Amino acid sequence: MSSLSNQLCSLIGADRVSQSPPDLVTHSKDKWFAAKAPEVVVFPESTEEVSAVLAFANSEKIPVTPQGAQVGYVGGCVPLSGGIAMSLKRMNRIKELNVQDGVAVVEPGVITGELQAAARAQGWFYPPDPASLKECSLGGNVATNAGGPRCLKYGVTRHYVLGLEAVLADGSIVRAGGRCHKNKTGFDLVGLMVGSEGMLGVVTEATLRLIPHPPMRAMLSAGFSSFAEAANAVQTILSSGFLPSALEIADKFTLRAAREYLGESVTPQGEAHLLVEIDGQSDSVRSEVSLLANLIDGLGCICLEEALGEDACERFWKLRREFSYSLRNTGLIKLNEDIVVPRSRLVDLVDFAEKLQAESGFPVACFGHAGDGNIHVNIMVPTMEDPEIRDRAEVALDRLFHQVIAWDGAITGEHGVGIAKSRWWEAAIPAAARQAHLSIKHALDPNGILNPRKFLG
Amino acid sequence: MSSLSNQLCSLIGADRVSQSPPDLVTHSKDKWFAAKAPEVVVFPESTEEVSAVLAFANSEKIPVTPQGAQVGYVGGCVPLSGGIAMSLKRMNRIKELNVQDGVAVVEPGVITGELQAAARAQGWFYPPDPASLKECSLGGNVATNAGGPRCLKYGVTRHYVLGLEAVLADGSIVRAGGRCHKNKTGFDLVGLMVGSEGMLGVVTEATLRLIPHPPMRAMLSAGFSSFAEAANAVQTILSSGFLPSALEIADKFTLRAAREYLGESVTPQGEAHLLVEIDGQSDSVRSEVSLLANLIDGLGCICLEEALGEDACERFWKLRREFSYSLRNTGLIKLNEDIVVPRSRLVDLVDFAEKLQAESGFPVACFGHAGDGNIHVNIMVPTMEDPEIRDRAEVALDRLFHQVIAWDGAITGEHGVGIAKSRWWEAAIPAAARQAHLSIKHALDPNGILNPRKFLG
Repeated sequence: MSSLSNQLCSLIGADRVSQSPPDLVTHSKDKWFAAKAPEVVVFPESTEEVSAVLAFANSEKIPVTPQGAQVGYVGGCVPLSGGIAMSLKRMNRIKELNVQDGVAVVEPGVITGELQAAARAQGWFYPPDPASLKECSLGGNVATNAGGPRCLKYGVTRHYVLGLEAVLADGSIVRAGGRCHKNKTGFDLVGLMVGSEGMLGVVTEATLRLIPHPPMRAMLSAGFSSFAEAANAVQTILSSGFLPSALEIADKFTLRAAREYLGESVTPQGEAHLLVEIDGQSDSVRSEVSLLANLIDGLGCICLEEALGEDACERFWKLRREFSYSLRNTGLIKLNEDIVVPRSRLVDLVDFAEKLQAESGFPVACFGHAGDGNIHVNIMVPTMEDPEIRDRAEVALDRLFHQVIAWDGAITGEHGVGIAKSRWWEAAIPAAARQAHLSIKHALDPNGILNPRKFLG
Repeated sequence: MSSLSNQLCSLIGADRVSQSPPDLVTHSKDKWFAAKAPEVVVFPESTEEVSAVLAFANSEKIPVTPQGAQVGYVGGCVPLSGGIAMSLKRMNRIKELNVQDGVAVVEPGVITGELQAAARAQGWFYPPDPASLKECSLGGNVATNAGGPRCLKYGVTRHYVLGLEAVLADGSIVRAGGRCHKNKTGFDLVGLMVGSEGMLGVVTEATLRLIPHPPMRAMLSAGFSSFAEAANAVQTILSSGFLPSALEIADKFTLRAAREYLGESVTPQGEAHLLVEIDGQSDSVRSEVSLLANLIDGLGCICLEEALGEDACERFWKLRREFSYSLRNTGLIKLNEDIVVPRSRLVDLVDFAEKLQAESGFPVACFGHAGDGNIHVNIMVPTMEDPEIRDRAEVALDRLFHQVIAWDGAITGEHGVGIAKSRWWEAAIPAAARQAHLSIKHALDPNGILNPRKFLG
């Protein structure tokens, strides 16, 4: 055992500290490429233990990288400077679920899907639905301000965090916000913590807003002969006064991969695909889904299917998820970039992706959240080990990100910057805003111990 | 002309600078009691002029108090330290309204209702609806994170600010966020600025999210024989899977004042009143309003009226506004405190208000946003000039705020802290969170020139 490990054992107990090789490997990465083993992993079980570790690490200037379920896509929780990896996975209790107040109080290690199920069992709803909801943790969702398809109607994680307890770098325990659904007392410290990717503090408790669960949902699955027609349908649906709970689009490259993987009969026809989901009261959903079906039918769709109710909708969502598996099934590596463009740029984006494909020689498949312009652009590469291919992939990524920035888009909609996108940080964020980031970082973490060497250096 | 005024004239031009006594009086206050004249008022017309004034003021350590439409309720824009009052009212252009992207780009002086009308004319919707929407400005809404009845379903101002341009104390111009509906690039500087009450920067442009305008709305107006029954109806509506666009409650003291002012026949019967508003597609709203009417009818309401469509709903909202005028009509001064309690505390709050009335001798009337627990508690005092009465009022306010804090409530839901509530700042916010406020304030405004002597001292 190293001296650091010994000191941590005496602080919080040996059963909360590990230097076992499997633990060091496990806590070296998330779902992205980069990996770097920490010197030691700690598994605090209380706010006080988090505080004790941080106070100690701060006084010794030892890097601490907080980790949730480690299913991020940008290397955000990789302990690039070694030091301490702090896993919050043992702090996984739903402490309270109170429908009268419309709140849930959770520890950061609670799996998102588990909270959703617990709320659902009482007729209530926690809307944020990242694709990884069965494995991601609420602490990780808070750190990345996680989104998902339903954020179009319901908003991202930030809109559901009413209060936070967070431990700052010096070990001080800050409680911000609370259990009220409205609160204008002081600065928005809650919002500042949400999405800060473990660089400003470690969240040890979150009070989340629950809303009434809409009793019914329905979906439409529509095929179009061109992406432009599907994108036009998105605009027409919205401008007709509908705010669907999801509006998901997929391009022809995604559909082709799906046809190869799933077969012709299961995959919707056409060169573009649109999924529309609505929810609400039962009769309302029934009448709205036929209004929408008529609307979409009039917009030139070549096939249209309807799903009514939870189970039927789940089959459509399963198809949507299969699109993702289909891309994986190509045997290629999917560089999944969750860029965002202003909604009017959807067609431009897909045209650009086609050009990029021709130039780079890599297939490029686009699908995602059309309603808010958050499209997952997947550049498909055979390997990231071969330097020539890797370089070519980096050139293609560079082209993509610079185009997105030129369109006033965002380099990440829901995954975060992490390591993966830190290369475009300077191009994406003007100098004065970067300076403001550094000022705030320095104010709350003057020794720079929290998750160092990410996008702020 | 003072030397300060001369310097400002040479910086941004004499037509942007005033020391006229009427201007000094006008810019000494908002709708709250406190007033303090600035030394000089500036009326910048561009971001560059805001930047020039701030850079100068910062180097000379001159206080600057930003002002919007000055219709706040907490003295937030009173230039307590004199110096420069910076009115943003001349920066009042809607620069862009783009429904394809679902955004409006506005200057801070645009009146909220004007943006709503401009969006509405194109079939789009800017939901935040503070009561003062015909006179308040979007810059002020951003500074206070303004709410309103519809925030129950649609969220507060923060949820509609996609991007900001703000000038920091040193004159640097920060652009944060953008025109995308999702963006996870870096810390949430946008959220940090929203609600910061002019203490972290001056917002010079906001990019706001627009959503499709729901084509139909409907309302129910219900009288109950007790507040407890009305509060129970709130819980039952929500737990039945409805998320109304508004759920407004009023207590018996409010209703009594309304009966005196408006007459018995116009005022709903009973000792408590509930307004429910829903919106959406036309057929959906029609079917849901009858579902809700049946639901409420079964909960013991003693009178129930329905409104369908914009005009009919507007008549109900007018009645709701008349409640407020009725209180004014008593000839008493309304100390309107926008406290928030966890929703399960609604009945406790009104019971407490009744006790407070008995103890203090002042009428206390409660009405407001029941769905999110944000109730306006109005302590009605004959005068604030008489020191004995004023002291008694302060004691009553103290009792109210400490009770709210003991219930894990919030001292302000939508008005902000300003001067009015700075007295309870320390009791409301734990020491570590107050320290975090000071660290952030110092990081972005090291000389403390922006809106000094408010809740951070």
